[in-house]
Amino acid sequence: MIIIMNSNATRDQIDEVEKRLIDLGFQTHPIFGEIKTVIGAIGDKRLLNTQDISNMPGVESLVPIMKPYKLAGKELKKEPTVVKVGDVEIGGKEVVIMAGPCAIENEETYIGTAIKVKESGAKILRGGAFKPRTSPYAFQGLEEDGLKIMAKARDITGLVLVTEVVDTRDVDLIASYADIIQIGARNMQNFKLLHEVGLTNKPILLKRGLAATIEEWLMAAEYIMAAGNSNIILCERGIRTYETATRNTIDISAIPLVKELSHLPIVVDPSHATGSWKYVNALSKGAVATGADGLIIEVHSDPSNALCDGPQSLRPSKFDQLVNELRPVAEAVGRSL
Amino acid sequence: MIIIMNSNATRDQIDEVEKRLIDLGFQTHPIFGEIKTVIGAIGDKRLLNTQDISNMPGVESLVPIMKPYKLAGKELKKEPTVVKVGDVEIGGKEVVIMAGPCAIENEETYIGTAIKVKESGAKILRGGAFKPRTSPYAFQGLEEDGLKIMAKARDITGLVLVTEVVDTRDVDLIASYADIIQIGARNMQNFKLLHEVGLTNKPILLKRGLAATIEEWLMAAEYIMAAGNSNIILCERGIRTYETATRNTIDISAIPLVKELSHLPIVVDPSHATGSWKYVNALSKGAVATGADGLIIEVHSDPSNALCDGPQSLRPSKFDQLVNELRPVAEAVGRSL
Amino acid sequence: MIIIMNSNATRDQIDEVEKRLIDLGFQTHPIFGEIKTVIGAIGDKRLLNTQDISNMPGVESLVPIMKPYKLAGKELKKEPTVVKVGDVEIGGKEVVIMAGPCAIENEETYIGTAIKVKESGAKILRGGAFKPRTSPYAFQGLEEDGLKIMAKARDITGLVLVTEVVDTRDVDLIASYADIIQIGARNMQNFKLLHEVGLTNKPILLKRGLAATIEEWLMAAEYIMAAGNSNIILCERGIRTYETATRNTIDISAIPLVKELSHLPIVVDPSHATGSWKYVNALSKGAVATGADGLIIEVHSDPSNALCDGPQSLRPSKFDQLVNELRPVAEAVGRSL
Amino acid sequence: MIIIMNSNATRDQIDEVEKRLIDLGFQTHPIFGEIKTVIGAIGDKRLLNTQDISNMPGVESLVPIMKPYKLAGKELKKEPTVVKVGDVEIGGKEVVIMAGPCAIENEETYIGTAIKVKESGAKILRGGAFKPRTSPYAFQGLEEDGLKIMAKARDITGLVLVTEVVDTRDVDLIASYADIIQIGARNMQNFKLLHEVGLTNKPILLKRGLAATIEEWLMAAEYIMAAGNSNIILCERGIRTYETATRNTIDISAIPLVKELSHLPIVVDPSHATGSWKYVNALSKGAVATGADGLIIEVHSDPSNALCDGPQSLRPSKFDQLVNELRPVAEAVGRSL
Repeated sequence: MIIIMNSNATRDQIDEVEKRLIDLGFQTHPIFGEIKTVIGAIGDKRLLNTQDISNMPGVESLVPIMKPYKLAGKELKKEPTVVKVGDVEIGGKEVVIMAGPCAIENEETYIGTAIKVKESGAKILRGGAFKPRTSPYAFQGLEEDGLKIMAKARDITGLVLVTEVVDTRDVDLIASYADIIQIGARNMQNFKLLHEVGLTNKPILLKRGLAATIEEWLMAAEYIMAAGNSNIILCERGIRTYETATRNTIDISAIPLVKELSHLPIVVDPSHATGSWKYVNALSKGAVATGADGLIIEVHSDPSNALCDGPQSLRPSKFDQLVNELRPVAEAVGRSL
Repeated sequence: MIIIMNSNATRDQIDEVEKRLIDLGFQTHPIFGEIKTVIGAIGDKRLLNTQDISNMPGVESLVPIMKPYKLAGKELKKEPTVVKVGDVEIGGKEVVIMAGPCAIENEETYIGTAIKVKESGAKILRGGAFKPRTSPYAFQGLEEDGLKIMAKARDITGLVLVTEVVDTRDVDLIASYADIIQIGARNMQNFKLLHEVGLTNKPILLKRGLAATIEEWLMAAEYIMAAGNSNIILCERGIRTYETATRNTIDISAIPLVKELSHLPIVVDPSHATGSWKYVNALSKGAVATGADGLIIEVHSDPSNALCDGPQSLRPSKFDQLVNELRPVAEAVGRSL
Repeated sequence: MIIIMNSNATRDQIDEVEKRLIDLGFQTHPIFGEIKTVIGAIGDKRLLNTQDISNMPGVESLVPIMKPYKLAGKELKKEPTVVKVGDVEIGGKEVVIMAGPCAIENEETYIGTAIKVKESGAKILRGGAFKPRTSPYAFQGLEEDGLKIMAKARDITGLVLVTEVVDTRDVDLIASYADIIQIGARNMQNFKLLHEVGLTNKPILLKRGLAATIEEWLMAAEYIMAAGNSNIILCERGIRTYETATRNTIDISAIPLVKELSHLPIVVDPSHATGSWKYVNALSKGAVATGADGLIIEVHSDPSNALCDGPQSLRPSKFDQLVNELRPVAEAVGRSL
Repeated sequence: MIIIMNSNATRDQIDEVEKRLIDLGFQTHPIFGEIKTVIGAIGDKRLLNTQDISNMPGVESLVPIMKPYKLAGKELKKEPTVVKVGDVEIGGKEVVIMAGPCAIENEETYIGTAIKVKESGAKILRGGAFKPRTSPYAFQGLEEDGLKIMAKARDITGLVLVTEVVDTRDVDLIASYADIIQIGARNMQNFKLLHEVGLTNKPILLKRGLAATIEEWLMAAEYIMAAGNSNIILCERGIRTYETATRNTIDISAIPLVKELSHLPIVVDPSHATGSWKYVNALSKGAVATGADGLIIEVHSDPSNALCDGPQSLRPSKFDQLVNELRPVAEAVGRSL
């Protein structure tokens, strides 16, 4: 940590800060410049509450040297994490496709869609039984009935299931059905929920928050890991920017950044990132070529009648075409699909 | 609702959309332009799932005419809501000051601070017992022990208590101690939590999400109101923008906008909005002059030793000075304090 | 155009607005809802000043139906524009690589780099002679001496030249050296400069502004086209968002959006978009797979000694590797390189 | 400057960086931590191109200690700058009101408005003769004819004139009419234009760019000052964020931040910041209470017929009311008006 003192800081203030740092267990190295003094403080004190040194008289700012996350970073674990669910591996050589409708609406449509996406090459089946909706008047999901339909779809297709949890009280219930538990963008900093899913033994698909920095996203992963669960798949799903032509702005740079900063795998959700099925094909290719470990794509057999997110859902035929077009892209960057 | 068809839409597609609208109970009014057709659809169908018309062939976009919120808007209730807690009124003529430390750390400091802010003119005492922290290694709050300290501070000072809830499982516990329940920025779209506090009879302080639009914020209020609780105080606490000189960017325009769109009172949190006590004085004055119904300000008797948000906390003496300087500003815009 | 009247609008106000629209040459179609009235106005009045109807009493808002750009859009020209410079075609089947250093620093280094990028497969040589720099104390470019060095590099390599203009007074000078004139991000809404380059017969590389919407970007193209120059290459170079882990956030969705809304070709600048050479390889592949018509990449033979943007420059060897790795990606999406 | 080496940096790489720093004239102070090494570098090297040290092998990042601006900061000049134009002082005790229409449309309306705003208490008259417009088809201003009308308005009212320059070629012309030259938001980083107005002896009203940080804004001021002109008035006019309920988001925190970082005066433009006259009254009060040295407000005698920015213009009667309501607010914070 580097402490930058402001240009008016007195010698007493500098001494006071140094003393405090030493009390906290740091080794200190003050550097006296012509205008400002800076103090280097050696020691990994992520667990201490050192931020508040920034409030001591004469302190201008603090510059952390170490990343605030430990388990999610590469310091303790350099090799990439491969999350295994059944015989599916996320983070390995294969690009993994997750697909399915936004919400489970009824058994027939859902199982029909599941069979189709399986045929096209999806390995993981998505579907929402508990839906976080912006409006209290919108369809909120079938809840446990939806989970039962998902389980039936798994029995029929052999696909691995991923579904979202939105309430700490439902974690056990969802863990009893799902193969992968999703934390949605709006709950990325619902720390109690992060802690609770960290206590399960299910892999977690952790979506990036709408306005979360990559550092905050990795800190959310750290919460889950600190509770004991290291099987985390990060999911970039678009961030909020000033541009309104798409629902969100996909931050494709997050892929190489996450690969640099963390050992966790990263997948991309082009459906939520753009809000329109028209752009899903192009962006899926872009994400895979950039290095994504997988994609999560909304597919609905009748988007015009979907109860949720119809505009961004692909029809099964378009999805099938997409998977076929993705294969050479994956191979062009040394991956399979 | 207006449906804009794209310039290549066929007559059949237009008819199909019109037919669907009529099935949904709308009256339709197509307008055929030279290049594009638009269809006006009359009827208040907020409760229906009409968004997915946007996915029908030939449809370019949908333009809602009505606001998506009903209870939080001015359609059904034009006069301003005054939230009453004991003998404190938020949304009336008086500008109400809420103050206190970020977190409750120990009884002595907390009660000491409570007495000071009361003397300076605060009417409501803030304090966190359950803290949402970005790092799993940071102080997470004293939980129920913290609530007990708050209750003791209320007994001594007579101040009204506001504290945050972060988990659906804690709502009853917190409601049994608090006078006002706070929903923090990170939980603004934790819809289950919104519903749950909507079932209590306590006023809710609803902070705006870090990247929430004003419309989404009012929709969050709608969730609480739809569950039966109409006593909501909106709280602007800064939004996330590209500017990093302050921790967040206070959106002061939210004050006149909320006054225009909603009957609910709005207060401002200059401490979180800027992240630095240095700017709290100026922005508090700005918020009151712009029309805020109140302020929520972090005050700590020893910010350098605070376990949470020290850098943005005022010392009691600075807080006292601020309240004194605020009084003429409130009077200059026809309010009292 | 649709005019939405507010719920309190009187019949007189509605009539007044209708009358004004008719005076402006529109056909009007009022639709009277239960709560609000909307008026459909038929006619393409982009050239008129209709925005100010929004200020008439009783008007809530205006919804444009037509895009504000005409020449840059697909209404008048549906087939893609292929910009030809010598025997290079931008917007055709081939993905075109532009490369070179940020600034021209001296003849030897520049020509050395030019030869290298040519060997690796670049078709267009970039280089700045007039540099827009954030600091007045930073290197501002060699000006005409730089242009002369560029011309020499062209003589030697046969590469096509692209260089930036930052002042209306320099347009003629730069047009006399350059094959393609670049408008930088900071000048995207320097309308006088747009007009001036629109009067030349050189193709224009139009970078997207740091905070420009896609619509504003196409309006900037419209400025150039309205002055008579239709040879425009759009260049996505990252937008400003709250995320600071990269210098800018590349908006990869701009590729399919521009393809949908405009006939103009689009290239991507991964160097400026991220600010770090480390991410250029991954994002170049992502951009090509998403459908970019080309890339513009910073290459410097000694980035540590570069006078400008060293951190985001590739060494020639890394650039060579990148082009080799890009080829299969281009082929995977049906392009050549 | 602090150089943070990454955790894999070799001793050789550390030595190499230290050597380079010494060559550049710095004194160096390496601090060897357990995981990372940091190097403190003493010396004010703002004029050197040190940024590219960040590209040397083993370097993770650079942390500047000194602000990049010198003349615009408080290091060399601590007392506030008061810009004097005739007998008007901006940055003194009085809050100065600038008012007038967006564009000069014709003599009669303009002079009529000028007389009105003078009567209400404005000291400075605004008006655009050269207008930067998003659309090439929108009204672009009366150019020199507009300047002549402005001069006439000055003769009649005695008001000081402020008007915008958008082209380096027009600086002399505009300087020959205007009392204060405005640099608009879109030209804040038109560095040639900044330099050119820096060569005049007219005070400059420097609007903040749509996506400019406060540091970039002060660097733009530095450009003007480096050219010799120190009479600069900063103008906050709203920044671009994800929120679309207002045209821009006024960054009110910029007021105390600028006061902390710079000696230059700062005024606020609530009309452009919100895009709607409805919010101008509230935000004007907020800006003055927060500490703004002045306001620039759009006033038009017939906003519905304005050729530019009608929706955000106040009628003279509303403006008069505003000035009257502002007076007690200014007094409440120790200013006059």
